Amino acid sequence: MKAWRLKAYNQPLVYEEIPDPEITDPTDVIVKIGGAGVCRTDLHLIEGVWAETLGTPLPFTIGHENAGWVYKKGSGVTEFEIGDPVIVHPVVSCGKCLSCRAGEDMHCENLKFPGLTVDGGYAQYLKTSERALIKLDKHVKPSDVAPLADAGITAYRAVKKAAPFAKPGTKVLMIGMGGLGHIAVQLMREFGQADIIAMDTNKDRLNMALEYGADYSVYGGNNAVSEVKKMTNDKGVEIIIDFVGTNETHATSMEMLRKGGSYFVVGYGGTLHVPSLDIINNEFNIIGNLVGNYNELYELMQLYAKGKVKLHSTKYSLDEANTVLKLLDEGKINGRAVLVP
Amino acid sequence: MKAWRLKAYNQPLVYEEIPDPEITDPTDVIVKIGGAGVCRTDLHLIEGVWAETLGTPLPFTIGHENAGWVYKKGSGVTEFEIGDPVIVHPVVSCGKCLSCRAGEDMHCENLKFPGLTVDGGYAQYLKTSERALIKLDKHVKPSDVAPLADAGITAYRAVKKAAPFAKPGTKVLMIGMGGLGHIAVQLMREFGQADIIAMDTNKDRLNMALEYGADYSVYGGNNAVSEVKKMTNDKGVEIIIDFVGTNETHATSMEMLRKGGSYFVVGYGGTLHVPSLDIINNEFNIIGNLVGNYNELYELMQLYAKGKVKLHSTKYSLDEANTVLKLLDEGKINGRAVLVP
Amino acid sequence: MKAWRLKAYNQPLVYEEIPDPEITDPTDVIVKIGGAGVCRTDLHLIEGVWAETLGTPLPFTIGHENAGWVYKKGSGVTEFEIGDPVIVHPVVSCGKCLSCRAGEDMHCENLKFPGLTVDGGYAQYLKTSERALIKLDKHVKPSDVAPLADAGITAYRAVKKAAPFAKPGTKVLMIGMGGLGHIAVQLMREFGQADIIAMDTNKDRLNMALEYGADYSVYGGNNAVSEVKKMTNDKGVEIIIDFVGTNETHATSMEMLRKGGSYFVVGYGGTLHVPSLDIINNEFNIIGNLVGNYNELYELMQLYAKGKVKLHSTKYSLDEANTVLKLLDEGKINGRAVLVP
Amino acid sequence: MKAWRLKAYNQPLVYEEIPDPEITDPTDVIVKIGGAGVCRTDLHLIEGVWAETLGTPLPFTIGHENAGWVYKKGSGVTEFEIGDPVIVHPVVSCGKCLSCRAGEDMHCENLKFPGLTVDGGYAQYLKTSERALIKLDKHVKPSDVAPLADAGITAYRAVKKAAPFAKPGTKVLMIGMGGLGHIAVQLMREFGQADIIAMDTNKDRLNMALEYGADYSVYGGNNAVSEVKKMTNDKGVEIIIDFVGTNETHATSMEMLRKGGSYFVVGYGGTLHVPSLDIINNEFNIIGNLVGNYNELYELMQLYAKGKVKLHSTKYSLDEANTVLKLLDEGKINGRAVLVP
Repeated sequence: MKAWRLKAYNQPLVYEEIPDPEITDPTDVIVKIGGAGVCRTDLHLIEGVWAETLGTPLPFTIGHENAGWVYKKGSGVTEFEIGDPVIVHPVVSCGKCLSCRAGEDMHCENLKFPGLTVDGGYAQYLKTSERALIKLDKHVKPSDVAPLADAGITAYRAVKKAAPFAKPGTKVLMIGMGGLGHIAVQLMREFGQADIIAMDTNKDRLNMALEYGADYSVYGGNNAVSEVKKMTNDKGVEIIIDFVGTNETHATSMEMLRKGGSYFVVGYGGTLHVPSLDIINNEFNIIGNLVGNYNELYELMQLYAKGKVKLHSTKYSLDEANTVLKLLDEGKINGRAVLVP
Repeated sequence: MKAWRLKAYNQPLVYEEIPDPEITDPTDVIVKIGGAGVCRTDLHLIEGVWAETLGTPLPFTIGHENAGWVYKKGSGVTEFEIGDPVIVHPVVSCGKCLSCRAGEDMHCENLKFPGLTVDGGYAQYLKTSERALIKLDKHVKPSDVAPLADAGITAYRAVKKAAPFAKPGTKVLMIGMGGLGHIAVQLMREFGQADIIAMDTNKDRLNMALEYGADYSVYGGNNAVSEVKKMTNDKGVEIIIDFVGTNETHATSMEMLRKGGSYFVVGYGGTLHVPSLDIINNEFNIIGNLVGNYNELYELMQLYAKGKVKLHSTKYSLDEANTVLKLLDEGKINGRAVLVP
Repeated sequence: MKAWRLKAYNQPLVYEEIPDPEITDPTDVIVKIGGAGVCRTDLHLIEGVWAETLGTPLPFTIGHENAGWVYKKGSGVTEFEIGDPVIVHPVVSCGKCLSCRAGEDMHCENLKFPGLTVDGGYAQYLKTSERALIKLDKHVKPSDVAPLADAGITAYRAVKKAAPFAKPGTKVLMIGMGGLGHIAVQLMREFGQADIIAMDTNKDRLNMALEYGADYSVYGGNNAVSEVKKMTNDKGVEIIIDFVGTNETHATSMEMLRKGGSYFVVGYGGTLHVPSLDIINNEFNIIGNLVGNYNELYELMQLYAKGKVKLHSTKYSLDEANTVLKLLDEGKINGRAVLVP
Repeated sequence: MKAWRLKAYNQPLVYEEIPDPEITDPTDVIVKIGGAGVCRTDLHLIEGVWAETLGTPLPFTIGHENAGWVYKKGSGVTEFEIGDPVIVHPVVSCGKCLSCRAGEDMHCENLKFPGLTVDGGYAQYLKTSERALIKLDKHVKPSDVAPLADAGITAYRAVKKAAPFAKPGTKVLMIGMGGLGHIAVQLMREFGQADIIAMDTNKDRLNMALEYGADYSVYGGNNAVSEVKKMTNDKGVEIIIDFVGTNETHATSMEMLRKGGSYFVVGYGGTLHVPSLDIINNEFNIIGNLVGNYNELYELMQLYAKGKVKLHSTKYSLDEANTVLKLLDEGKINGRAVLVP
């Protein structure tokens, strides 16, 4: 099959023929890719940001936001038939460790993460396991929902954790109205009661956020901090969800957060520097957020089916992967780009 | 009356005669000090660490860990009589703002913090309000319990927040077995089910921690990180409570924390530096902790009355304050020092 | 002033002249009534349902759902001026007991409940305390919001407790689309993600519920149980909120509740009979719900101000109280009736 | 093999030869029974209390509290070897439904419950699945820990749910100091901070409870209610955990529960009758409790390994099952009886 391979850091991916994945385990499933979302993490992988943390040997196929159809299945797979349309939870978990037993697939002690630690979905076929699959309605096109598999559930998990703090009368600041942010605004509408302030450096995205339910928008320029302070009588916001994660958003978030406030880190790449005096005196919570678990993906699919969450996405042909990654890096993708084989 | 005044940063306190505090509000109470605990925050105040954050004009009387007897009371005070022995919750809160109405006295919008923002308890008398007082049994000596008013409830609040994570089979690392740490070990015995690892750079304190219920002790030297890693199959601990808060404890905590783990910051003074990649990939929680609220002090007093929490403290005469602060700075106080007028 | 007095159980109220309430305590406030909501509890009070439980000596003035303007105030009242429009939290709490300090005004150890244990608001003036008041915007008419003071926050508290169970993909059944139910449907839209099934024996109310956001309506007749079972593949619903509370709704709720489900009791009057085998085998939660606390009323007012909650109410003159109570008893009030002096 | 069969309700079990269980599924495991606990539910099964609820066809083998050694295993079983000593979580769950994925094995949509819905452990061999097994240390005898598999985790789950309410200064009443109760007292010592009141109609058991950490004991006779009221200034206790579940314990619990209190139902057999006025006016929570899940069994085994939970049990030969059941029915078993093949 054809697949995009990360062969060297800071180099374009290489599109080449590799062997089709094969069933080796009774619970294995090969999914024929219908759509593969393009995520900022893919850029970070190419940049080598994850190299030391993960130690994945090169080359490998990236792409961790996948949907498609069941193509082959192992002998132990009972809940799916060949041809079933499915969305693919991004990780392959063992189902036996205490984390899996508690529902926290992401903390599985035997985790495989296609697209990060083994071959992913910028390809015609993807190898995953039955535990990762959720069946789609026959009329849903996999390429329409692929971004829910990662952008969606990451936003979902962060918003669900933040929602109990988002009481009526509070304000939540969301930084970055891209692939995750535009979903998060809609989810916060559903889960929380706070006023939503959307922040971005792209005015089109701010307008999109307002359409999706944000109450206010703030341009992420030099005056951003003072604007947010002004909106909150100088007290700051109760909640920040940061989908960007640069040095700058980390630093300004600490300035805009209210006493007792919670800062949800989703985007990454920068370094957070904060005196512990500020952490304790303000009793800040700083909360890391990873991809949601299987049940969270299930729940998100229910909201999507009810029309409570809409995706802003653009489809590209699979062979355009490098072009799309470049557009993403230049901030020229609104919402999410999806590669379609 | 006599009181110890902070007149200039980085200078010894000055012991001098100042006017007695007076009742000005119907809810005011003047407490005759029975004991005033000596806290690392007092050192930080003298060092000017809080100067910018609080902006309290000099001079003022420090001391925020107080117990004594009701000496004078305003016309609206209904629950206390002159002479009642009391422990003093460290803040004067308004009782009317939403934070007070939710029980979070520390986040009161009209907060006064005697010893930090107004005159405190290194003195013969302290002005506070009825809302801050909890009655002691007639047979309890205020100087025996004063450290519960701050060291106690700060440890209490941090442990209570950490306890839901401290499931059987997990490990909690507590850094710093001083005034707060030795109480926290006992509270974690009551609230959590994790194995407790005590860490300190003083072996006497480590032994004290073991006596108070820690399961393991680790000397806080060069091998500390590798020892903790070894105890956890290289995975790190689920929970860290850091009562020290230096650059070093912040940095090593990030190395010793397990995927999905929670880092409770109580001590302060250093700066936390952490790449957001680590925060998100490990889904870390970093939680700031302030003094506990009024009900938490009430609850702690119940545990103390049942003998579930013991205090390791040494009493000094009030006029020895500067000497005691010096001993604390040199790491020569075990448990807590209490000044007695 | 004129007031409606409960002089004998199961007799009409008597409208008569009684002395105006007077300030006797520094924190007292006399509110000039702008609107007093008419609640099913008022019928229950007249029927003597509460007689034994409360032991309130007759006669007294009923009415516990009040809004108006500050008319007189005690010397210790600092946050309100004469003439301020206010909504009145239904209870007078002490602010000093542990329940008050934890924010649970309703569990105050020194509780007074105007309209139930002391004189209430079916009158020109009401005596309450500063702690019970929330200021209204100048442009809000007290008679427009009075029902939020009891119907509103009771619905709010029940929905907030139920919301964490109301995950995407679940179903919540709400029984009784009257004064509380029509608010609860809107609140569940804001707080939960479950599909909402509204049940009532009045088709107009069912239609109103659908307009306010219910997903389905079920007529509360003989087929109600089987209809709900059918909608849930015979498994029952995850959540029931019962605003009616008769023997019949208690019994059928136990039939319609799913394994692991939660039954929130708000309406009352009947008796719940349930074998403990069913409670344990299904791991049911049965949760009693009282009026919300002060902060919950504050939060509800925020949602109202944002237009997220609408009230369906009809105004009547204060002198029509007995007529209105009769209409309510006959099921002829849709939404809430408000008495205006 | 030999097994005890329930052939007719209200008749003694029949001890007879039946075919050994066989592996039919790759995840199946046959456990050679080391010990099978004897539970009041076994009496209820014989009495037909469960007949309608479960509809299990007779005859079948009872016994749901099992430990032993892996005897045979299916081809997909990866974590266990033949001969491994194991404790058996009481249910066989699918691992694929949303309840399983959330960690709630007991609410599995495809649940099998050996001893209740399929053949159980009053026998030489038991068929279960890999998902149900937890490995024991080599030096632990299965017959020593079998009661943890059901009595233990049922107590564990109830205590864990109750613990957040069991704050310092509160009181928890535990009714029934038998197989579950004596474990629950020890667990409440670990998890909660409330004073523990043990109630039973057997003085030996009350003494055992005091040894295991109860603070007070109350004889469950005619004066029980008034004694508990007296201990609580007539206010009642914040928490009741009822391990008995008769009409009488249900009724008296409603009298002894404090405003805002929580009643945890574990024992069953009676019917709860309670006016909804009491439920709402007191804002009672009535919480059903089933067997704990897999992770809860894991956690309990950690506490047992640390010596935090001791079992009071007596071993009998497997062929004495009917005798032991009779002793249990007559209240003559203290702690738990375990049948050993």
